[in-house]
Amino acid sequence: MQGEQESIVCISRPEQALDGPALTSSFGLQFDIVDGGGYDIINNAAIPTPGMQDYRAQYGTLRQSWEVNYQEAAIYLQEGENNDKFFTHPRNPQALAAYLFAHNHLFYMMELVTGLLLMVLSLCEAPAVPSLRLDVYVHATLELFALVMVAFELCMKLRWLGFQTFIRHKRTMVKTCVLLLQFVEAIVVLVRQTSHVRVTRALRPIFLVDCRYCGAVRRNLRQIFQSLPPFIDILLLLLFFMVIFSILGFYLFSHNAANQYFNTLENSIVSLFVLLTTANFPDVMMPAYSQNRWSCVFFIVYLSIELYFIMNLLLAVVFDTFNGVEKMKFKSLLLHKRSAIDHAFQLLVSRQRPNGVSFKQFDGLMRYYRPRMSTRDRFLTFKALNQSSAAMLSLKDFYNFYEVIGLKWKPRKSGEHWFDDLPHTPFLIFKGINILVKSKAFQYAMYVVVAVNGVWILVETFMLDKGFSWSPSVPWSYIVFLTIYGVEMLLKITGLGPLEYFSPGWNLFDFSITLLAFLGLIVVAFGMEPFYFIVVLRPLQLLRLFKIKTRYRNVLDTMFELFPRMASLGLTLIIFYYSFAIVGMEFFAGVIYPNCCNTSTVADSYRQVNVTVGNRTVLDEGYYYLNNFNNILNSFVTLFELTVVNNWYITMEGVTSQTTHWSRLYFMTFYIVTMVVMTIIVAFILDAFVFRMNYSRKNREPVGDPEDENGIVFEVEVMRAEVVATLELYKQSCPGTTSLSSLQGVQLSMERSGLSSVVFRGRRSRTKSDLSMRMYEEEMQEWYEEFSRESQVHTPLDTLPPPSIRPSVQDLRQRAHSIN
Amino acid sequence: MQGEQESIVCISRPEQALDGPALTSSFGLQFDIVDGGGYDIINNAAIPTPGMQDYRAQYGTLRQSWEVNYQEAAIYLQEGENNDKFFTHPRNPQALAAYLFAHNHLFYMMELVTGLLLMVLSLCEAPAVPSLRLDVYVHATLELFALVMVAFELCMKLRWLGFQTFIRHKRTMVKTCVLLLQFVEAIVVLVRQTSHVRVTRALRPIFLVDCRYCGAVRRNLRQIFQSLPPFIDILLLLLFFMVIFSILGFYLFSHNAANQYFNTLENSIVSLFVLLTTANFPDVMMPAYSQNRWSCVFFIVYLSIELYFIMNLLLAVVFDTFNGVEKMKFKSLLLHKRSAIDHAFQLLVSRQRPNGVSFKQFDGLMRYYRPRMSTRDRFLTFKALNQSSAAMLSLKDFYNFYEVIGLKWKPRKSGEHWFDDLPHTPFLIFKGINILVKSKAFQYAMYVVVAVNGVWILVETFMLDKGFSWSPSVPWSYIVFLTIYGVEMLLKITGLGPLEYFSPGWNLFDFSITLLAFLGLIVVAFGMEPFYFIVVLRPLQLLRLFKIKTRYRNVLDTMFELFPRMASLGLTLIIFYYSFAIVGMEFFAGVIYPNCCNTSTVADSYRQVNVTVGNRTVLDEGYYYLNNFNNILNSFVTLFELTVVNNWYITMEGVTSQTTHWSRLYFMTFYIVTMVVMTIIVAFILDAFVFRMNYSRKNREPVGDPEDENGIVFEVEVMRAEVVATLELYKQSCPGTTSLSSLQGVQLSMERSGLSSVVFRGRRSRTKSDLSMRMYEEEMQEWYEEFSRESQVHTPLDTLPPPSIRPSVQDLRQRAHSIN
Repeated sequence: MQGEQESIVCISRPEQALDGPALTSSFGLQFDIVDGGGYDIINNAAIPTPGMQDYRAQYGTLRQSWEVNYQEAAIYLQEGENNDKFFTHPRNPQALAAYLFAHNHLFYMMELVTGLLLMVLSLCEAPAVPSLRLDVYVHATLELFALVMVAFELCMKLRWLGFQTFIRHKRTMVKTCVLLLQFVEAIVVLVRQTSHVRVTRALRPIFLVDCRYCGAVRRNLRQIFQSLPPFIDILLLLLFFMVIFSILGFYLFSHNAANQYFNTLENSIVSLFVLLTTANFPDVMMPAYSQNRWSCVFFIVYLSIELYFIMNLLLAVVFDTFNGVEKMKFKSLLLHKRSAIDHAFQLLVSRQRPNGVSFKQFDGLMRYYRPRMSTRDRFLTFKALNQSSAAMLSLKDFYNFYEVIGLKWKPRKSGEHWFDDLPHTPFLIFKGINILVKSKAFQYAMYVVVAVNGVWILVETFMLDKGFSWSPSVPWSYIVFLTIYGVEMLLKITGLGPLEYFSPGWNLFDFSITLLAFLGLIVVAFGMEPFYFIVVLRPLQLLRLFKIKTRYRNVLDTMFELFPRMASLGLTLIIFYYSFAIVGMEFFAGVIYPNCCNTSTVADSYRQVNVTVGNRTVLDEGYYYLNNFNNILNSFVTLFELTVVNNWYITMEGVTSQTTHWSRLYFMTFYIVTMVVMTIIVAFILDAFVFRMNYSRKNREPVGDPEDENGIVFEVEVMRAEVVATLELYKQSCPGTTSLSSLQGVQLSMERSGLSSVVFRGRRSRTKSDLSMRMYEEEMQEWYEEFSRESQVHTPLDTLPPPSIRPSVQDLRQRAHSIN
Repeated sequence: MQGEQESIVCISRPEQALDGPALTSSFGLQFDIVDGGGYDIINNAAIPTPGMQDYRAQYGTLRQSWEVNYQEAAIYLQEGENNDKFFTHPRNPQALAAYLFAHNHLFYMMELVTGLLLMVLSLCEAPAVPSLRLDVYVHATLELFALVMVAFELCMKLRWLGFQTFIRHKRTMVKTCVLLLQFVEAIVVLVRQTSHVRVTRALRPIFLVDCRYCGAVRRNLRQIFQSLPPFIDILLLLLFFMVIFSILGFYLFSHNAANQYFNTLENSIVSLFVLLTTANFPDVMMPAYSQNRWSCVFFIVYLSIELYFIMNLLLAVVFDTFNGVEKMKFKSLLLHKRSAIDHAFQLLVSRQRPNGVSFKQFDGLMRYYRPRMSTRDRFLTFKALNQSSAAMLSLKDFYNFYEVIGLKWKPRKSGEHWFDDLPHTPFLIFKGINILVKSKAFQYAMYVVVAVNGVWILVETFMLDKGFSWSPSVPWSYIVFLTIYGVEMLLKITGLGPLEYFSPGWNLFDFSITLLAFLGLIVVAFGMEPFYFIVVLRPLQLLRLFKIKTRYRNVLDTMFELFPRMASLGLTLIIFYYSFAIVGMEFFAGVIYPNCCNTSTVADSYRQVNVTVGNRTVLDEGYYYLNNFNNILNSFVTLFELTVVNNWYITMEGVTSQTTHWSRLYFMTFYIVTMVVMTIIVAFILDAFVFRMNYSRKNREPVGDPEDENGIVFEVEVMRAEVVATLELYKQSCPGTTSLSSLQGVQLSMERSGLSSVVFRGRRSRTKSDLSMRMYEEEMQEWYEEFSRESQVHTPLDTLPPPSIRPSVQDLRQRAHSIN
């Protein structure tokens, strides 16, 4: 323990070999990650012993103990990033090995693929898509194989979590149960060589949802379940009014024999349930209305209360809950990340310098956290974090870890244009193009061209009134407009340089549309009929017109920003669809066919008859027999139609007439479930847009932040001396490392150009989290303080005390002891 | 000008006769309101002259000048309350007379009645409701009469506003133009003795909207127009995508001859417009889907973008605008009221005591502002305002004017129960009932009874599966349950006393439902068949169950609170309906009849044929011929059906097939208009509920405000000495006044009971404005400061400087001078 003073530039001086980490890893041993066979070497010390002497004696060299700490810190940071709870943190070497095995993209991919395989199987099982039908033993074997894979993954998880934690982890337990069930069923199928009623297949999405890449779907599901209690309350109100009105309707209208909608209480309830969705609207009223004109009052009052009031109330309640849930989610994620950073920081500081992480330690951490990151980027990340420009990262600096880690670094251009280094004449030409391309006149000229093109297409299409038929001749207008777009594109690329051209999404959109149009031209020219739909995408060019107005730009930008969340919501919906499709197939496959349902009131819609009109025989089709559950693809389309709601009762009544009354339960349940999901989607879109609009309103005034339109930008100035010192440090500490080329490249280019410093710019796209951080700036401080206070009161294992009240690392370790 | 000190109890000492008002009324003359003939006495001094000597010489006695000031202050306060702009403030005696004439409930009623009469006329005009048909000369004469009334009202307005202001007032100008047009048309009708195409009748709602009682409708309309610009932007995006997809759809599907939805571009556009509303959903897809299963992708993408994304975006944008507009509206109303109070205050203070309003002045004001208010209530209002308990009202006190003015005053009960004063035995009995009625057990027992009743009704109805038919026998269950409810009601009324029983809305609801049930019993017992629907309302009893859960109580309470706004929104919708109904009647009356529209694709829905089933002849009806525009009531029902949207295209196609393609414009326009109104209704409900929920979340913590659940409560303690002094003051100042009885009553009752003070409690129901004031507490301070600053910078005529910076009344008058 040397009482040395801290030097200011720590990088220039390798650390003292004897100054060990302040906390020891909870793995408690030297551990070589590459060596998978070293599982059981020492399995005794999940809790570090307090004394340094013991420690060194027990765990070998200091370097090894640092390595273990780096690794654990990296794991903490990963857990913070992935929102994994700390109680699943690996606590011993086997756990660590299993953890590492189960936490890489290969494993994740395996999980995803098995999950998808299991779901895709239903394309080939019993009521299969005709072209994909497989024999029973083939698909059962495939299923069994996939289930074995899942079992293997679960074993790894068991090994990593330990039995106790495994049992406590609800999601994993559910998965295990479902797995066992599916296993038994798959074996039964294999043995009997025929599929039985396997409604449990509806549970298959669980395997997909549980995999790492579907975290967003899991979050959505959680949000849906959190919004459920208030939703159900209002739903009950809705159904209650429905029942009251059913009784009223029965009393009022059942004396009219022609009125099939209210002749029994059951019919009355069903009619009013369907009326909730408006799907049978004027029809349900008509018999009563034709008898007594005042009976419309009943329906108007019912719809006003149910549809226009309570349904909106439902949205309001979900929206309100959603708002709160979003905020709480952000808060807990934020605090979880902060706590992960606290943990990691404690593992990275040394006993002598308990308030700062040196570059050496940071580099060690990054070797585990982002093994692929180049030395240069690690160095730049460290510099970006190091805002106080002291030699070490304080905890406060380190708190920005997650904001900085995703940045992509590039040296900032010295000149503005890519052609600045060219000789004079081409420079002038390109400069001219650049000015032209950036001019308002050019832009508006292009808008005019696009508008003319739009009108042209419209008129052209309108002229084709006899119906469009494929012809291999290329219309000249197509060529003219395409040439203009092509020239514009080339001018822009040369004038701005490819990099600048492609950075805004809009240009990328222009580019791909123009490319598609070219492909269309080729298609037309070579007469490849099956691809003619590409030609048809031409009108999409018109979308460019929407760049003109700010509101549209905002809306479309927001749309792109929201796209990932939207996609995950779509996926969530598909998972619900999948479960319902399986149930539907098991019960209703083959039930619907042309000319079925003759006993029902909707028989017309299922009719398919040949009608002689004049001297031709025409097929008069009701087409609704196409909305069936005969295979999973058909089921999906049918369910989509049920989601859109219009005329859904035709499908319901058709199926009901072919099966039992109880089938209605399926359709009604589906309606309510999609109502929940749809309401949440609406609430999400509302919330997201209102949030965005508030955000841009709030951030209109203060300008000059290190953000441009498209993302978050950090800038770091690097001195030549620093680079040299860092390289020196690397060479001293690990002479064998070969991955220094990136940093050496920086050094070389600086020497070549003779500059003493280079500015690097890191950029990443902006996420919802960044917006939230901006929006909740004030509240965040409160949360942090609250968090500090809480962790001070009952320091749980998961949360370390915050820096402000942390007395000393020594105390902390003793405290941790007393808790353990 | 006497330099007297202010004494503390001003009321005990009548004011010095010579201390005149600090500002003189802008009417600038003595003026007897009752004397309508005194219009043109003096018409010179809209601006007061500065010197007191001149003033007295010019305007006669001080008392008269005070009276004029009271009246003008009352007008200012009224303008603040009604949100009338100050530029319409009457500025001379004729104006004042006209103003007074046009601002009382009689005149308002006249306005309303003429407006309604004009609208109701369309029941009797040309395509009239059969039973209400009137001859042309009758309804044209009625119309002319109503129009003359409107013209008279406009003349009064012209007299009050003066020609300049009248021209500047946009709403009035529009009204005048419409009036002239209608006048000419009505005369033409009378001369020709037959109605021509009178689409201009669609403008009639303007007369209704302009009347005083429809202020809420006007505000709604303004809000709708304010939300329009962003709405239209997004609507364009929606329509743009629609057109692009129409072109795509035309190219993709028009080669299929069986596909009538996409065979021309026009059909393609119409199909996709209808698809926006989902009204033709699976059908529009089916022909293409039956040919190629992948064509469903086109429809799924279209619906996902248009229906699920852009439509919600529309809602988001409107909701966001709505939010802002609501806040701005509240702000401007608040500041307008404040400015009105400023104006009034300046007119009420005397030159010697420029910082306070004495009771005498306040009483004078109230005599004009609320002529019906009793002396006691005036006194109590003054006491409630007078928070500093100095003798005078400061401007700060006076700012609470609008919060206090609506209170209903009652002496606070000394005891808790109404039976406290009874002898011992009955007291004990009633006390027992009171305890019983308030006990949880009793409440839950009643819930159980209601639930059992509900199940009973359900089962009973379910048993009646053969259809309900009227029978004059009373089921015994009805009597049993009714007896229980009756006993409960009686117990509650006796236990709580009628006053306490009826104060919460819920009990009122119980009471009326039970009363209805009794009426039902009588109906059943006496066999009055036409009223049997009363019996049928029994299930509404079940609503009582919703008292159990807080969320429902909140929701239903909010519902009641929002009811006025909802009603005004409904009225706004009806006004739109009216205009569209008139246009629809003018163009489409008589167009739809049974078995029409045989050339259209929806002919089935209009068919009415006799079909022989077995040996019976049954009428097979499409019923849609009932959805016509044959008279205004039918039109309203048809329009409601179009609002609900489902199957609306059947009506559209029917009418189109009988008229021209251009009829679609009518239906599409109506759809878009209702979409706007409906979106705004949804946004309103969302906003109101989210606001309420935020409010109750915010106000959960601080308790102990002078508010109970149902309203705002103020308490004032009155000393006997004060009452006596006030009475004295009244007798001194106006010996002839006979309206002192209420205050004398207080004095008498105090003397009788021997108390030296009585506490009075004022209560009023809580309005949205109260909630807003609570929510925006912090921002309000900012607004006030901003307002002060602004009025300091460019003191306009309308706004007086706020108290903090007001140097002296003398300065103020000089300033006003320099501006004028």
